[in-house]
Amino acid sequence: MRLKIEVDLDYHFPEATDVLLAVEVAQLPDQVLSEDRLTVSGSGPLRPIGAEDGIGRRTWMRAEGHCRASYRATLAVDRPAEAIGGLSESPLPDLPPEVVPYLWPSRYCEADRFEAFVDKTFGGQSGGARIEAMAEWIRREMDYVIGSSDVTTTAVDAFLSRRGVCRDFAHLMASFARAAGVPARLVSAYAWGLKLPDFHAVVEVWLDGGWHLVDATGLAPIEGLVRICVGRDATDIAFMTIFGVGAMQAQSVQVTRLDG
Amino acid sequence: MRLKIEVDLDYHFPEATDVLLAVEVAQLPDQVLSEDRLTVSGSGPLRPIGAEDGIGRRTWMRAEGHCRASYRATLAVDRPAEAIGGLSESPLPDLPPEVVPYLWPSRYCEADRFEAFVDKTFGGQSGGARIEAMAEWIRREMDYVIGSSDVTTTAVDAFLSRRGVCRDFAHLMASFARAAGVPARLVSAYAWGLKLPDFHAVVEVWLDGGWHLVDATGLAPIEGLVRICVGRDATDIAFMTIFGVGAMQAQSVQVTRLDG
Amino acid sequence: MRLKIEVDLDYHFPEATDVLLAVEVAQLPDQVLSEDRLTVSGSGPLRPIGAEDGIGRRTWMRAEGHCRASYRATLAVDRPAEAIGGLSESPLPDLPPEVVPYLWPSRYCEADRFEAFVDKTFGGQSGGARIEAMAEWIRREMDYVIGSSDVTTTAVDAFLSRRGVCRDFAHLMASFARAAGVPARLVSAYAWGLKLPDFHAVVEVWLDGGWHLVDATGLAPIEGLVRICVGRDATDIAFMTIFGVGAMQAQSVQVTRLDG
Amino acid sequence: MRLKIEVDLDYHFPEATDVLLAVEVAQLPDQVLSEDRLTVSGSGPLRPIGAEDGIGRRTWMRAEGHCRASYRATLAVDRPAEAIGGLSESPLPDLPPEVVPYLWPSRYCEADRFEAFVDKTFGGQSGGARIEAMAEWIRREMDYVIGSSDVTTTAVDAFLSRRGVCRDFAHLMASFARAAGVPARLVSAYAWGLKLPDFHAVVEVWLDGGWHLVDATGLAPIEGLVRICVGRDATDIAFMTIFGVGAMQAQSVQVTRLDG
Repeated sequence: MRLKIEVDLDYHFPEATDVLLAVEVAQLPDQVLSEDRLTVSGSGPLRPIGAEDGIGRRTWMRAEGHCRASYRATLAVDRPAEAIGGLSESPLPDLPPEVVPYLWPSRYCEADRFEAFVDKTFGGQSGGARIEAMAEWIRREMDYVIGSSDVTTTAVDAFLSRRGVCRDFAHLMASFARAAGVPARLVSAYAWGLKLPDFHAVVEVWLDGGWHLVDATGLAPIEGLVRICVGRDATDIAFMTIFGVGAMQAQSVQVTRLDG
Repeated sequence: MRLKIEVDLDYHFPEATDVLLAVEVAQLPDQVLSEDRLTVSGSGPLRPIGAEDGIGRRTWMRAEGHCRASYRATLAVDRPAEAIGGLSESPLPDLPPEVVPYLWPSRYCEADRFEAFVDKTFGGQSGGARIEAMAEWIRREMDYVIGSSDVTTTAVDAFLSRRGVCRDFAHLMASFARAAGVPARLVSAYAWGLKLPDFHAVVEVWLDGGWHLVDATGLAPIEGLVRICVGRDATDIAFMTIFGVGAMQAQSVQVTRLDG
Repeated sequence: MRLKIEVDLDYHFPEATDVLLAVEVAQLPDQVLSEDRLTVSGSGPLRPIGAEDGIGRRTWMRAEGHCRASYRATLAVDRPAEAIGGLSESPLPDLPPEVVPYLWPSRYCEADRFEAFVDKTFGGQSGGARIEAMAEWIRREMDYVIGSSDVTTTAVDAFLSRRGVCRDFAHLMASFARAAGVPARLVSAYAWGLKLPDFHAVVEVWLDGGWHLVDATGLAPIEGLVRICVGRDATDIAFMTIFGVGAMQAQSVQVTRLDG
Repeated sequence: MRLKIEVDLDYHFPEATDVLLAVEVAQLPDQVLSEDRLTVSGSGPLRPIGAEDGIGRRTWMRAEGHCRASYRATLAVDRPAEAIGGLSESPLPDLPPEVVPYLWPSRYCEADRFEAFVDKTFGGQSGGARIEAMAEWIRREMDYVIGSSDVTTTAVDAFLSRRGVCRDFAHLMASFARAAGVPARLVSAYAWGLKLPDFHAVVEVWLDGGWHLVDATGLAPIEGLVRICVGRDATDIAFMTIFGVGAMQAQSVQVTRLDG
């Protein structure tokens, strides 16, 4: 699937502010970039750095006043739909060292507080089948309500309110998986076919010795996901982190299929 | 300073359980091992893996029934006492990519919730002087009370209760630093001179392009700290993580000076 | 049912401390006292006061050092087992003014946070049938584990950990009811037939114009409950509130049936 | 001081909904009503009930669709400015039974969690002087920022964010007082002289055998406060409680001085 991605961010910063952008497509075997370009007006020189786990790219900018960032990419995604139901859990001692931290709870994924619920609700299953049952539970019990959460909302908050957006669904998914001893990380992504185009958040779980994508919202096909970067929770993968004060004025994300 | 470290852990596991140990001294320029040995009875084969940030070592064991782990090390620490008061903050865009995540809040360090307090209380200072002011605040306002917290206690909890142990003091220190835009990580350590010998938790902050040790408890000299491993908070650096059920029966940590 | 109640409390107070006791049986139509007596050694003069909602009695004492309180009562309970399943909810505007506050969330019953869960889980039912479904849910999903909670544990905490004691079961029951618009209050009680004799906590819900007892633990029959006092949550109905520092040294509660 | 109060509430309720209004001025010795009238369009018959502690009035309405409530009152307030600094605390056993619950923590006033802070910060003072020191601390350390909190914000949240509105300032004030063993209740009020006219929330503390008004915001003079009702926290004293869904469309509160 060949995709074109167009992102436009229009922000205002009353004072000179460090801003970390994470909008660039990660170069990975199943998503191959033809070309991409990030252009920013209203910023000092850009400073690119790597992202977490060596996956993807981020860019520091020093923004002041009106600032427009524009990102354009064309790429091919070659990722077959995958049934994870048959995958088994990896023995814990086989986990690569860099995967181990994805067992831990994190700021917005209080996995430790879900252990009893996960054990009671999903204790009869294991491996990929258990992960699928968790995703189904989330789709069934949670309402997707735009505006129902904010940057302070944790997995526990969403579990209680039974509402959220992609970020919250992903936090629940990762929390449930970790509570069951399955490493899980958050993934920011562009998603072809998402009804209300925006940055998307999904999860990768570690099964059978590798990472596998899960979208607890079910709002977009796995085959059309384009990963940006990964991390423990929303705080690591934010498309924009402002170290000061800034206000969004306009923002758009478009993912267009070029073939098919 | 030449030190001998002796750790004895005596636990009981009713069922076969994966356990991750993080007790081995990290090999670092300022702490040079002569020899060390981890021996475990009551476990299947040990599986060593690296620890976070490539610092230190961890060991998986499969424990069942009565299990005794014993660790012995002799090493030389050559770390002069350092005054961090004069160090300056590194510009954010200069941070190495692997340091950036230590700006984020984590499970037990809700740095985001301390921003207003930190700005009001320490906003007039910067760099190492601000970090020192934070450590002094913690020493002055917090009571060190053994038994006053447990593994679920967060920095916010400790801030409210004004009580805690080394883990809580370190969580507050890291939270305050991150809330001020200074990367901070938790460090598990052996501490020469600690009154009640036990595993210790301290913090490293990133100033002037490098990590610098801070012990918010002030209970042991920096010159006698022996780092084990590092991470975002207590969950990453636990000396023992039990993936199931286990009970401590006896435990001792001894740090002895061999010279001087 | 004629019952004898014997309570012995043995506490130590390092300094002179105000203590509020709420251990005396409330005089109510369905529980008629023959006689009772509260005696306290190690206290200054006792000062009796009424309890909340005009139900029951409390006693201030000024305790210092070793302090023993002993309470003895004999009474007759005449309360038939009641099926609440058929009762209907009272229209809100018909609630007596003093019942209205039992619609609100309270310190340990965050009813507001359970609205979505309650609506999704019990939304298809109403009245007494809904209350019974809530009690069944609690009995089925919660594990009664002595020592699994403490005085700081809220209904949300118990909901997540799926464990608790009578206090937590009652907090959940009251939270669920209030979230559904049904007034609910906590009731401290002596319970004939309770396996591990202790103070008990149950709930009263307002249905069909009156209060009705519900024991979400199912550990003791409603017919043998002896009410002490009522309130919004555990904090109002504690059998002992210490305004300072005190330590329990021994404590026993016995409820004996005199007839039958 | 003679005052005229004019309140207009314009709401929309998509379905028939029970709504509890608490906008009517309480009749009390220091605030004497000449006349008042509550009129509501778009509601079924109004049902007046008493409010908590026997202070003030509330009115149930059954609203559907567009609903306008209008309240007009003229009254005389005769309340001299009072210096509470010299008042002493009442011995706990002297508290009237109905005052005792105002010692407890409540949903939005987690007094139990502030005990250490209060003891460390205000432990050297007592009585009215301590209450005044608490109010000064709140005025100094908290920023009054409209929009910075919502109905879910607790005293702990406000303490951390160091921001809030009158509701949050009152929650902190009540929490601090209770943590020090001084009964405190929330009071909803009309406030003459409030810059941005709106419903106001203040606190009453129990000192020297009576309730005394404290406004931790310092935004309006005590002499011009007109009490509506009282309760444990914001949930008890809300001017409008909607048992369902409703949206504000317009709202105004005016307090005008008729003499002087």
